[in-house]
Amino acid sequence: MKEGQILELKPIGIVHSPYLDRGEAPRQGCGREEICQVEVFKEFEEGLKDIEGFSHIILIYWFHKSRGYHLLVKTPWDTKPHGLFTTRSPDRPCPLGLCVVELIAREKNILKVKGLDAIDGTPLLDIKPYIPSIDEKVNVQIGWLKDRLKVKRI
Amino acid sequence: MKEGQILELKPIGIVHSPYLDRGEAPRQGCGREEICQVEVFKEFEEGLKDIEGFSHIILIYWFHKSRGYHLLVKTPWDTKPHGLFTTRSPDRPCPLGLCVVELIAREKNILKVKGLDAIDGTPLLDIKPYIPSIDEKVNVQIGWLKDRLKVKRI
Repeated sequence: MKEGQILELKPIGIVHSPYLDRGEAPRQGCGREEICQVEVFKEFEEGLKDIEGFSHIILIYWFHKSRGYHLLVKTPWDTKPHGLFTTRSPDRPCPLGLCVVELIAREKNILKVKGLDAIDGTPLLDIKPYIPSIDEKVNVQIGWLKDRLKVKRI
Repeated sequence: MKEGQILELKPIGIVHSPYLDRGEAPRQGCGREEICQVEVFKEFEEGLKDIEGFSHIILIYWFHKSRGYHLLVKTPWDTKPHGLFTTRSPDRPCPLGLCVVELIAREKNILKVKGLDAIDGTPLLDIKPYIPSIDEKVNVQIGWLKDRLKVKRI
């Protein structure tokens, strides 16, 4: 790979969400009761086979309302600037969002999910199964975020 | 967003890994002892400020050796075809890889990490802090993968 190379992506779907813009979306979706509808375009529907058996899935999406980025950012959690890559800000060089959501139901190419922070119209890029034995870690330290986050594990 | 829209990404770094091609890379990196060096391009180095305080980070990268995709895939775990989006195959419509890795050390713009399954030369797209209260879930069901995975939580 050469520095400066451009990679191209074509979305596989779109998120229909009750959050209509950035101001309405939660900082993280976990703990929220709202249901979002994740529409997987018909041409990819076959790839959803057997997904009903999974209680949680990982969604990767495009922060389409991202507004460029700064490498040092202030967050709501304290007054100091921190490195962008220690935050979950949507304003990133590659504006990729990531959320582990609860899969409530599937109706053909529509997934009803809970715990998603994406706003309406968000392009969906990928769906992966959430697998605790792979995706969860123990003895985790969260640096400057320690004691600052109010989100409870659900 | 319109169906068929093309989105463009510019990598923020590159992975230097002991796994030189697909045949050498582990199916998932967790449990492996090899150290990978994640080079963040100099122009993004400032975004790493304070990352040393985090024991685990989420890497999103580009499966540059992806070979197209099939929506139904057979895996090593059983003989039946399953929906692509219930697997972690690198051959996906949007070839995005995701791995939670242990951050061993940082030296300027180089992150030394353990537990990464990416092969040498993999373009790095994003780094996010791994935050258990956001990223971990309870009462998880993993569908057809149940009793098939040999990976142990570490």
